[in-house]
Amino acid sequence: MNKDIKLIDAINNRHSVKEFDPNVKISKEEMEEMLSLAIRAPSSINLQPWRFVIVEAEEQKQQLDKLVRFNQTQLHTSSAMILVLGDNNHADKVEEIFSQNVAAGSMTEDIKNYYIQAVTEQIIKAPVEVRRQLAISDANLVAMQIMLVAKAYGYDTNPIGGYERKEVMDVLNIDSERYTPAMFIAIGKSVKEAHGSERLPIKAIASWNTGTNGVVGE
Amino acid sequence: MNKDIKLIDAINNRHSVKEFDPNVKISKEEMEEMLSLAIRAPSSINLQPWRFVIVEAEEQKQQLDKLVRFNQTQLHTSSAMILVLGDNNHADKVEEIFSQNVAAGSMTEDIKNYYIQAVTEQIIKAPVEVRRQLAISDANLVAMQIMLVAKAYGYDTNPIGGYERKEVMDVLNIDSERYTPAMFIAIGKSVKEAHGSERLPIKAIASWNTGTNGVVGE
Repeated sequence: MNKDIKLIDAINNRHSVKEFDPNVKISKEEMEEMLSLAIRAPSSINLQPWRFVIVEAEEQKQQLDKLVRFNQTQLHTSSAMILVLGDNNHADKVEEIFSQNVAAGSMTEDIKNYYIQAVTEQIIKAPVEVRRQLAISDANLVAMQIMLVAKAYGYDTNPIGGYERKEVMDVLNIDSERYTPAMFIAIGKSVKEAHGSERLPIKAIASWNTGTNGVVGE
Repeated sequence: MNKDIKLIDAINNRHSVKEFDPNVKISKEEMEEMLSLAIRAPSSINLQPWRFVIVEAEEQKQQLDKLVRFNQTQLHTSSAMILVLGDNNHADKVEEIFSQNVAAGSMTEDIKNYYIQAVTEQIIKAPVEVRRQLAISDANLVAMQIMLVAKAYGYDTNPIGGYERKEVMDVLNIDSERYTPAMFIAIGKSVKEAHGSERLPIKAIASWNTGTNGVVGE
């Protein structure tokens, strides 16, 4: 564990790891501590649309085996697989969320009611595709912080995109009409030094002030 | 500047800031340094679909004025507004990306060719909606790292979702068929201490192993 790890070191030393020490189990308390840090991420109107299912039991891991093709090593050797989801109905918690602000003294009852009405009009009544996109975009912000926070706790991660979404949701008893998977993150103790990967140069992917003939970067 | 900032402090001290010191200008070199760190984020098959337009010129800021309703203070006082985009055609850079790995000695020519074929079949030929979703999901990972890296350079940020997407793209001469905005980030030097915000308790947003009757969290 290295809770004093520098931000820049965490960013530079975070590499995807595909094999973990199967004997290392992260406790529920430690997992909750890591998630509590990760959810300090910002979200649209602070509605916190991210949800998590932390898969660590052997029974569920076995059921997922056929559904994470090419990623079975991570599934079976990781301490847990964190399914990061967006909740399409996230705005339903608006009253609970803004009541916390009132209780903390950072918001008046009037402002709370103004927000509740605005969120109801603009988000709760919005088409599901709008709510889904809001939810998974913010869920990805938390996913990034989970991968960084893991470094501070001595763990490594592998963000996994290749899995059967609908079947995974069914096996884990998650309503796939309401929730959308953003990322499946394997987390555990790496068995060997991970190697980094290259990046395109900034000039190839960035433009100053405007694009050029519609194109960004060189 | 505090390049030694701890990861945990960066996460806990990152708060959205809506007013910046208008006299502080981030140099191009410093901006490139921050972006170079942020793009250490992972992406699907390392295809790095994120793109950036860094808006700092007065001319473009003026043109954006009417298009960022409610966020004009950030627009006009920030050092820059970073438009983080996903490139729907990001996989077209697959050869360039994997050639970097071959040059770095971390990949053989055969593996490179295998990946190029797989990416061509599975991504380049995929429907635009699939490519767009891949692109903006990974773009949000980088967006989170930009907001954290800013803290190490002594800056603050405000992630902005409320802006006229199509019109902003047009004004900035960015092809909105090809690129999708993921987040507009105001960055600059905060003029006052930012205040934090509350979060829902973990038990309300997380389940262990499976959902309960389809629902995640209590």
